[in-house]
Amino acid sequence: MHVGPVTIDVDVLKEGLRGDVGFTSREFVEAFQYSLKAMRRLFNAKPNDQPFIIPGGGTSAMESVTSLLRKGDKVLVVSNGVFGDRWEAILSRYPVTVKVLRAEPGDYVSPDIIEEELKREKYTAVTMTHVETSTGIREPIYEVAKRVRSLVDLIVVDGVSSVSAEETKLENIDVFLTASQKALGTPPGAGLLMLSENAVNRLSDDSVAGYYLNLKNWLPVMRSMEEGKGSYFATPPVHLILMLAKSFQLIEKEGLENRVKRHARISQAIRAGIEGMGLSIVAKRPEAYSNTVTGVLVKKVNPAQVLQEMNNSGIELAPGVHPALAGKYFRIGHMGWVNENDAIATIATLERVLYKLGEPVKLGEGLKATQLQLA
Amino acid sequence: MHVGPVTIDVDVLKEGLRGDVGFTSREFVEAFQYSLKAMRRLFNAKPNDQPFIIPGGGTSAMESVTSLLRKGDKVLVVSNGVFGDRWEAILSRYPVTVKVLRAEPGDYVSPDIIEEELKREKYTAVTMTHVETSTGIREPIYEVAKRVRSLVDLIVVDGVSSVSAEETKLENIDVFLTASQKALGTPPGAGLLMLSENAVNRLSDDSVAGYYLNLKNWLPVMRSMEEGKGSYFATPPVHLILMLAKSFQLIEKEGLENRVKRHARISQAIRAGIEGMGLSIVAKRPEAYSNTVTGVLVKKVNPAQVLQEMNNSGIELAPGVHPALAGKYFRIGHMGWVNENDAIATIATLERVLYKLGEPVKLGEGLKATQLQLA
Amino acid sequence: MHVGPVTIDVDVLKEGLRGDVGFTSREFVEAFQYSLKAMRRLFNAKPNDQPFIIPGGGTSAMESVTSLLRKGDKVLVVSNGVFGDRWEAILSRYPVTVKVLRAEPGDYVSPDIIEEELKREKYTAVTMTHVETSTGIREPIYEVAKRVRSLVDLIVVDGVSSVSAEETKLENIDVFLTASQKALGTPPGAGLLMLSENAVNRLSDDSVAGYYLNLKNWLPVMRSMEEGKGSYFATPPVHLILMLAKSFQLIEKEGLENRVKRHARISQAIRAGIEGMGLSIVAKRPEAYSNTVTGVLVKKVNPAQVLQEMNNSGIELAPGVHPALAGKYFRIGHMGWVNENDAIATIATLERVLYKLGEPVKLGEGLKATQLQLA
Amino acid sequence: MHVGPVTIDVDVLKEGLRGDVGFTSREFVEAFQYSLKAMRRLFNAKPNDQPFIIPGGGTSAMESVTSLLRKGDKVLVVSNGVFGDRWEAILSRYPVTVKVLRAEPGDYVSPDIIEEELKREKYTAVTMTHVETSTGIREPIYEVAKRVRSLVDLIVVDGVSSVSAEETKLENIDVFLTASQKALGTPPGAGLLMLSENAVNRLSDDSVAGYYLNLKNWLPVMRSMEEGKGSYFATPPVHLILMLAKSFQLIEKEGLENRVKRHARISQAIRAGIEGMGLSIVAKRPEAYSNTVTGVLVKKVNPAQVLQEMNNSGIELAPGVHPALAGKYFRIGHMGWVNENDAIATIATLERVLYKLGEPVKLGEGLKATQLQLA
Repeated sequence: MHVGPVTIDVDVLKEGLRGDVGFTSREFVEAFQYSLKAMRRLFNAKPNDQPFIIPGGGTSAMESVTSLLRKGDKVLVVSNGVFGDRWEAILSRYPVTVKVLRAEPGDYVSPDIIEEELKREKYTAVTMTHVETSTGIREPIYEVAKRVRSLVDLIVVDGVSSVSAEETKLENIDVFLTASQKALGTPPGAGLLMLSENAVNRLSDDSVAGYYLNLKNWLPVMRSMEEGKGSYFATPPVHLILMLAKSFQLIEKEGLENRVKRHARISQAIRAGIEGMGLSIVAKRPEAYSNTVTGVLVKKVNPAQVLQEMNNSGIELAPGVHPALAGKYFRIGHMGWVNENDAIATIATLERVLYKLGEPVKLGEGLKATQLQLA
Repeated sequence: MHVGPVTIDVDVLKEGLRGDVGFTSREFVEAFQYSLKAMRRLFNAKPNDQPFIIPGGGTSAMESVTSLLRKGDKVLVVSNGVFGDRWEAILSRYPVTVKVLRAEPGDYVSPDIIEEELKREKYTAVTMTHVETSTGIREPIYEVAKRVRSLVDLIVVDGVSSVSAEETKLENIDVFLTASQKALGTPPGAGLLMLSENAVNRLSDDSVAGYYLNLKNWLPVMRSMEEGKGSYFATPPVHLILMLAKSFQLIEKEGLENRVKRHARISQAIRAGIEGMGLSIVAKRPEAYSNTVTGVLVKKVNPAQVLQEMNNSGIELAPGVHPALAGKYFRIGHMGWVNENDAIATIATLERVLYKLGEPVKLGEGLKATQLQLA
Repeated sequence: MHVGPVTIDVDVLKEGLRGDVGFTSREFVEAFQYSLKAMRRLFNAKPNDQPFIIPGGGTSAMESVTSLLRKGDKVLVVSNGVFGDRWEAILSRYPVTVKVLRAEPGDYVSPDIIEEELKREKYTAVTMTHVETSTGIREPIYEVAKRVRSLVDLIVVDGVSSVSAEETKLENIDVFLTASQKALGTPPGAGLLMLSENAVNRLSDDSVAGYYLNLKNWLPVMRSMEEGKGSYFATPPVHLILMLAKSFQLIEKEGLENRVKRHARISQAIRAGIEGMGLSIVAKRPEAYSNTVTGVLVKKVNPAQVLQEMNNSGIELAPGVHPALAGKYFRIGHMGWVNENDAIATIATLERVLYKLGEPVKLGEGLKATQLQLA
Repeated sequence: MHVGPVTIDVDVLKEGLRGDVGFTSREFVEAFQYSLKAMRRLFNAKPNDQPFIIPGGGTSAMESVTSLLRKGDKVLVVSNGVFGDRWEAILSRYPVTVKVLRAEPGDYVSPDIIEEELKREKYTAVTMTHVETSTGIREPIYEVAKRVRSLVDLIVVDGVSSVSAEETKLENIDVFLTASQKALGTPPGAGLLMLSENAVNRLSDDSVAGYYLNLKNWLPVMRSMEEGKGSYFATPPVHLILMLAKSFQLIEKEGLENRVKRHARISQAIRAGIEGMGLSIVAKRPEAYSNTVTGVLVKKVNPAQVLQEMNNSGIELAPGVHPALAGKYFRIGHMGWVNENDAIATIATLERVLYKLGEPVKLGEGLKATQLQLA
């Protein structure tokens, strides 16, 4: 129940058990082709939109957005926490201007404030974090995108903790990025980006981007691979892409709609359990709840000790990393192949651990609330 | 017998079969720690030298060298082929000046020429490619490094196709980089760099580097991991590092000296076979031969057809990619866990394929030469 | 949560991923040697006692006991259910005489009755089933063995559903047998037997046994393997034994005492949940409870439907197979690597399934009882 | 290059990586069903013929033939070596009469002699070994079967080292048996038998067979499984059958005819190499050659030392086990997924090893003969 890398299905892992597969092999090219086409379906993309799968992860995918920026461009960063702030850390290494809108801990930046700022001043791009991994806060990205579409050239969404677990579509968005090791349920090693036609058209030699993370260099590879032809720019993570293709197969077997519903159902059950045992959630209001990450505030015990005890009981949770809430919370990840048993086992173990450590919880009440939510 | 990704031992692959391992897990941290310490031993490094393992591969490791460069720095690139030229392509995206010394196809840039240029003009850094993957040419890097040590601040070696298969040591070198999927025998997904103390001291916020490939950002992670403590900058390729640690174990079990000898022995046997059947090698003189890649010139047949037929017989070779020799050669990779049987099977199949396609070879003669070399 | 094959650790499964290992290979011989020595430790055996690992499973291990019987021998079978009765089915194919003592459903044959029968008439052997898989009933084998030790030549225990999960020792017992796929946590494919010195001495060409299941034929193989020397009688299940050795390693890491305690703790939690939700257990009194299998009686619903719905929720239970209770119960297996999360998830899902199917259960109450038992 | 267990494809092994699959699971039942149907196709069986897959291996499959014999039956055993003699060892444990016809070492029992004996005296059954694993001798079973069909009730063939590598069909044969770990390319753990309608009709409670290896007990399981319905008699080797189904898939993809041709081609190349380097083959005449096993006679060196040195070079051969030729030969197995590279590598290594040990061989000549045979 970590926020990522998540638990991975053995059927996915088995695809990596290949000792003799090169980047020109038929199997690899087919897996790459399948994955790109699956991305198109997942994001309900139009033919001129363009999927990318590049080595690295979420942060490298974020940095590759520099392929769309030119010297002097202005970027508005909408930050609900640590990973929102990361956009600023990345972009400040490049000759572009950055302004950050920050939310209060437990809340998201409201669409009104974003729209206002974009009306106030002209920006090339705005970035948003769909689900802020550090707190579990969800930004209403589709509403924002609709309202600011005409005000800004590029709308960029970090979907690292949302893609395939929250509503996923490229509508009004130019870059929707994620990483292999989150809700897609593959080991870490690749960043995935879906670009709108508008974004693809901005790829040029004049961007501020470097070489390896420059999407322009990867574009011909993506096009060849999607046509089923091998191509080389730099060595791709061959085994990982064999696994990723399997993950996409499993995702399509479940169906995006069912998948989002399942994540919603499990997250509700977990929140019910948390509240049932008498604890509070970091997200201050239901609109900010996410399907994938729940921040849990504790009153008395040390969150680090909770994580340690949970680990000893076989359940790995994630520490709280938002500086403003340091030492006050921990996080439960619930994405990928999570199911009802995971929710029940997590709440049961958490109850016992908190009880043992002296946090005032009533044994069995959180569990009952989760059970009633699931029934 | 590809130039990379190479054939991977199933014992290495099995380490990746973990569904539940996060980047804070004890097993991952221990695998990372072991790999960093193994790098120190492999390169015979001093305590203040610093190993790095970062996501990506050879090209990203090359680009991360920008972490050591400042605006306006001058870099001399010694290029023996496609991957030497890549340094120019990467560095030209950054505000540094680049000059390239290019070798004739089939030869390397002589130490005299390099020394002369570095005496003629002051450069911050010189880059060399230990074994040029595109042609199989080996540069005498240790001789060059010794001769130019006092003339230049940073001596950078691309050891992608050499580390652990050719003599490997940090002597007089500031950056020695490689990738997981070459002679180390792990799937692709990580770049590895060994930095001298001198290089580590140059890491600063003033470098021209971006964010994800900026070694300064990864330095605290490497130091924590080597101390056995988890740490986070961006999600590492967890499963890959579990596999890499296993590869290092196998490498240490064999011993570096034995490993280099084995590669030398197999490469000699392959060259004997090639010449025995009447073909020539791209490398023009024995000093340019490498232990890891052999370029093979054909007279009559189409190299692409040779590769296709070899593939049908279960042996994957690599195409020739040096533009000056386009359509005239193909490559045999012989790195990682190659053994005598691989050499024999490759030469045998190659003889039969070339014979069938009409190249003038004498059946059995190449094979006999390989056998006599091995006996 | 099946009664077997149980859930298997991926670390065990990975040991079978060997494409090139023959029955004379060092690794196989070492795995066999390790497994035999681990059996000695598990059963606290004396030097002249003898472990056997033979192809097949529980039934073949039972049949191999014919290696100790001669024409005309009399065997007393103590049967608490289907697998007790199996002794009669097996032995009736051989020229020996069999008498069966049968327990009431939900109970075991009392030590008094067994002792009385053995006093009344002279038998060569008595067989008991430690835990009767068909009902989850445990026989007090150590008490019986102590009381009848002087009355009978051979005391034989079927420990298929008990070894390593209930108290396991060869004390006063001549043959203690099990199968790889039960509490040992390895895939099915091998039967394991621990023979006392007394039993080993009875192995002779005069037995009624056939050839393949004749322990006399396997004895020299076992002795060679334990000395680390390859030996052949018939091809052993090579990959399975590599896995079995890993299972024994994991078992020794946990320790037998801890392992039995864990099974006891989980079985208590499951029984608490069953009773908490208002259902009854097949075993009529606590002395008959086992650590590994719980039979659950339902009042209203069809057990087959319960199993079907449980399966759909990802938890596989086992059908009731005792003819006297046909259609009235199902079974929960809790052996191998079961933990608290398994107990919680099983009870939670069972509650929801039974509730949905119309069995009168109070949602959350069984779960709470399990949680309190575990806290 | 062992005579079994043979080298196993990783795609087959991966199928066994299942931690949660029971013997009632849909996947297992489907794999069993597929395997049984594939057996029918492999043997070109008629609808009333019956395939069996039972735990164990070749020897247990042989012993299960007792299911067809009644007290007092007479069996003629045609033995070309160790595994022919094994029939006698097995059957002598049962109340039937056995007579053995033995061939000279290096030869097979001629059809004339068999026919003559069956005319001379009435036998219930005759057994033959298609390819005698201990020597590599092939018996002309189809000719014999045709000639003696009317003289005997049951014609039984041990196809352990032949099925799918030599011509495979049930024509005029009543029982054709093999084991999973031979040319089928699956790990050891199962015996496979194809029974004619005539043989199926003989299954009765009156047979001399025991319980576990009694085909009558397994018959309802085979019928249920083939209809896609789970069934239980004793726990089958679940994981092995998942792998076996994959092997059958790969076999059907290649096609039986191609598969037999490939085995023939590789065996010819190996024999050419052996003779090319100046050694002799155990089989005295070409009619006795098999596609799967070649016995190699040495003049000067100790075969055990040859095997040891081969092992050190990464190629496992098998010792000679025929008592009459003890210390004079070793065996090369070439079944399963053997290819041209295996033949070349085996001959090359063997040449070097024999040369090094002092056997008079001419380096490169055996290899050249193999190469010319393959070209």
